[in-house]
Amino acid sequence: MNIAMILRNLGKLLLVEAGCMLLPLLVAVIYNQNDIMAFLITIMILVVIGFALSKIPARNKNIYARDGFAIVSLGWILVSLFGALPFCISGAIPSYIDAVFETVSGFTTTGSSILRDVESLPKGLLFWRSFTNWIGGMGVLVMMLAVLPTARADTLQIMKAESPGPDPGKLVPRIGQSAKILYRMYIGLSLIQVILLLIAGMPLYDTLIHTFSTAGTGGFSNMNTSVGAYNNVYYEIIIGVFMFLFGVNFTLYYQVLNGDVKSIAKDEEFRFYFFTVAGAIVLITCNLWGPIFGTIWESLRYSFFQVSSVITTTGFSSTNFDVWPAFSKTILVALMFIGASAGSTGGGIKCLRFLLLFKTIKREVRRIIHPRSIYTVKYGGKTVNGDVLFGVMNYFFVSIILFAVSLFLVSLDDFDMVSNFTAVAATLNNIGPGLGIVGPMGNFADYSDLSKIVFSFTMLFGRLEIYPMLILFAPTFWKRVNI
Amino acid sequence: MNIAMILRNLGKLLLVEAGCMLLPLLVAVIYNQNDIMAFLITIMILVVIGFALSKIPARNKNIYARDGFAIVSLGWILVSLFGALPFCISGAIPSYIDAVFETVSGFTTTGSSILRDVESLPKGLLFWRSFTNWIGGMGVLVMMLAVLPTARADTLQIMKAESPGPDPGKLVPRIGQSAKILYRMYIGLSLIQVILLLIAGMPLYDTLIHTFSTAGTGGFSNMNTSVGAYNNVYYEIIIGVFMFLFGVNFTLYYQVLNGDVKSIAKDEEFRFYFFTVAGAIVLITCNLWGPIFGTIWESLRYSFFQVSSVITTTGFSSTNFDVWPAFSKTILVALMFIGASAGSTGGGIKCLRFLLLFKTIKREVRRIIHPRSIYTVKYGGKTVNGDVLFGVMNYFFVSIILFAVSLFLVSLDDFDMVSNFTAVAATLNNIGPGLGIVGPMGNFADYSDLSKIVFSFTMLFGRLEIYPMLILFAPTFWKRVNI
Repeated sequence: MNIAMILRNLGKLLLVEAGCMLLPLLVAVIYNQNDIMAFLITIMILVVIGFALSKIPARNKNIYARDGFAIVSLGWILVSLFGALPFCISGAIPSYIDAVFETVSGFTTTGSSILRDVESLPKGLLFWRSFTNWIGGMGVLVMMLAVLPTARADTLQIMKAESPGPDPGKLVPRIGQSAKILYRMYIGLSLIQVILLLIAGMPLYDTLIHTFSTAGTGGFSNMNTSVGAYNNVYYEIIIGVFMFLFGVNFTLYYQVLNGDVKSIAKDEEFRFYFFTVAGAIVLITCNLWGPIFGTIWESLRYSFFQVSSVITTTGFSSTNFDVWPAFSKTILVALMFIGASAGSTGGGIKCLRFLLLFKTIKREVRRIIHPRSIYTVKYGGKTVNGDVLFGVMNYFFVSIILFAVSLFLVSLDDFDMVSNFTAVAATLNNIGPGLGIVGPMGNFADYSDLSKIVFSFTMLFGRLEIYPMLILFAPTFWKRVNI
Repeated sequence: MNIAMILRNLGKLLLVEAGCMLLPLLVAVIYNQNDIMAFLITIMILVVIGFALSKIPARNKNIYARDGFAIVSLGWILVSLFGALPFCISGAIPSYIDAVFETVSGFTTTGSSILRDVESLPKGLLFWRSFTNWIGGMGVLVMMLAVLPTARADTLQIMKAESPGPDPGKLVPRIGQSAKILYRMYIGLSLIQVILLLIAGMPLYDTLIHTFSTAGTGGFSNMNTSVGAYNNVYYEIIIGVFMFLFGVNFTLYYQVLNGDVKSIAKDEEFRFYFFTVAGAIVLITCNLWGPIFGTIWESLRYSFFQVSSVITTTGFSSTNFDVWPAFSKTILVALMFIGASAGSTGGGIKCLRFLLLFKTIKREVRRIIHPRSIYTVKYGGKTVNGDVLFGVMNYFFVSIILFAVSLFLVSLDDFDMVSNFTAVAATLNNIGPGLGIVGPMGNFADYSDLSKIVFSFTMLFGRLEIYPMLILFAPTFWKRVNI
């Protein structure tokens, strides 16, 4: 394990976080509320510690797989611990555990909140809160690699450990270049959403907040009742469509930008994602039409927004779906686990994994019927390696176990089982709200500190796709021998 | 596909079922209630159809893997459809769908019931109801193989398709012999339980009913409030211990009977099973002590019985655990999925599968930390084949998908989500009661006919470990080409 290189990279990361905080500082100065000093102090702390760490001498500059994982998992924990400081120092969130929960929820693009009254926060802090959604969406380490000029080839280990999906591909051979292209597309798509929301009439500040949270599929709003507060169908259509777009694998956008427009229609995961969304919208619309909404258009409006919000794991709400019939709620809970596409900013188990798992079932059925024939699982016309399938199935199992362990710990608070179940599902899959006390009209404030710490971990586990966090708990990981 | 041989075996199976019905007929005659004619008519129907089918000429006497699956899945459906007749004909359960639900629940050793008042049923029908638990525990096809003298070597395909667990082993080279040994041990263990319950003071009829349901890990009682109706700590200890014992892999008993007493302590799955049970009992006892029960002994008494009942998927209850704290209920729901040991009469995903899955996670963590080393998953000192691990992971995923699909359909009835969730969990894992309206004091009567049909299928899917049932839904299965 190359501890010097791990610390150096963590130092750089903290410097990048200090840089990111300049933007909310600017907002705080413009609105001139009581959060200016909080940002200044935090930035100072970040610069001092970041600078000290980044200057640690390292004889060996190689980053091994294990180091990549350590940088990613410790990096995410550190940016969350420091990112929570402005909330605490300003007094807006008095409890540090609460502030860390809120910041982890931001960076992991979960969007769960312990705030009972979001609207009472100073504008600068609210801006920072949603900005963490935007930074976390593409990955804090990817941002570092995009920003810093020193990205070497072996930083592939860092990108590998942070990227979502079973098979993280590079867009171009050079890592730093890939990170820059990803960020350019990310910024471009965000800008289009900003322009559309401004045209639709949303104020600039609200537009930025909601665009950050849409792009990162985070879901932090500056309104207590989320997007529903505006009761504006144009906002809902724009945000609904962009949530869907940010849930698409960015590699597809890269191919489209390079002229290969057909690649989207040909992509199996995109088709799976699209038809899952369409199917869920149709089923929920039919289920709501009558018992909840009088017209089919109204049912469609709320069904579309909520499905897009939940499957992309954004977590915005345009209505209180906690009062919907059990069938609709069951579909939403299932979408929570499916999640968005691999290589998007969305969370969950990911469409690609489900697609591969379904193909594996199909193969098993064929194997039983025709035991002597040989069948392979194909994706995009190519045979999928057995190791990849193995990894996908294993990931599914680990997710469920992690889910169960978190549920045990959280159930000690003795809230009802639907709240506990959906609270864990919403944090592990980085969605935001669940049902019951953590429903769209509720929040996580009533849970105990222990549960909030558990939720903070489940959010990190979910965002980093489990293994980078899991190895922190393996005793062998901390042994310096056997590099 | 060898349709003649499939039909012949199904015919034999119906004849065996007719034979099994003589015992409840005897009980009905003794108590002389209104169920005698119902049994006589059903037995006649079974004999006529069974005899006709078993005489179908077959040129080719080979049974292929595909035929084995067809015999098992169709066989289970048929014995349930015919086994439901006495309930219907006697008028005790007027709806045929309800009667089929109850019979499927019996044969699959689930123990879920649509009866609001169990105690009002005639004694012969109640006896048949619990006897289906006993028959289904070891497998209806295994019974056929044990009873009939014509068991050929290629009936391995039938036994393979019916046996629970990822790697069904034969005890001795000859199948018919294996089936007989299994039944001898099964009868022996049942007899010991009968004697102990009689000594403890339980009436003979009640003893037989509860022994059948314990041995098959089914959980049908002749009391509305299950074992709790007696409020007798001795009964609870005897039944609690025997539920645990019937959840052990029968291969271990065979080894012990052959003098290898240490094999139990050395068996990894048994240790996993034992420590899961022990851990759950300790955690739930601590959780109940105070809020629910005044003394630690009382907490232990109910915790022990309920844990043993749920993990073995029996489903007896000695108290209304639906009112227990969320932590205890969450543990019980988790135990529902874990289930008993492979090769036992219990259901669920099985301890062996979970053990292998945990070992796989451990290996993945090591692989990440030391990418260049090679690690294998070992069980019982031997390296586990990659295909077996693949099958286990795949089974886990299919279970969860089947769970989700059933949940969607059942949620159309718009009951609360905890009831729906645990109702599906309780039927898929062959347990019996869940929480909420299907809790220990409730039943499945209020669900719609559609849901009852769905539950009947989930019970069959669960008992046959999914694939034998799943292939019935595969179009390629019904094509006669490509044997």
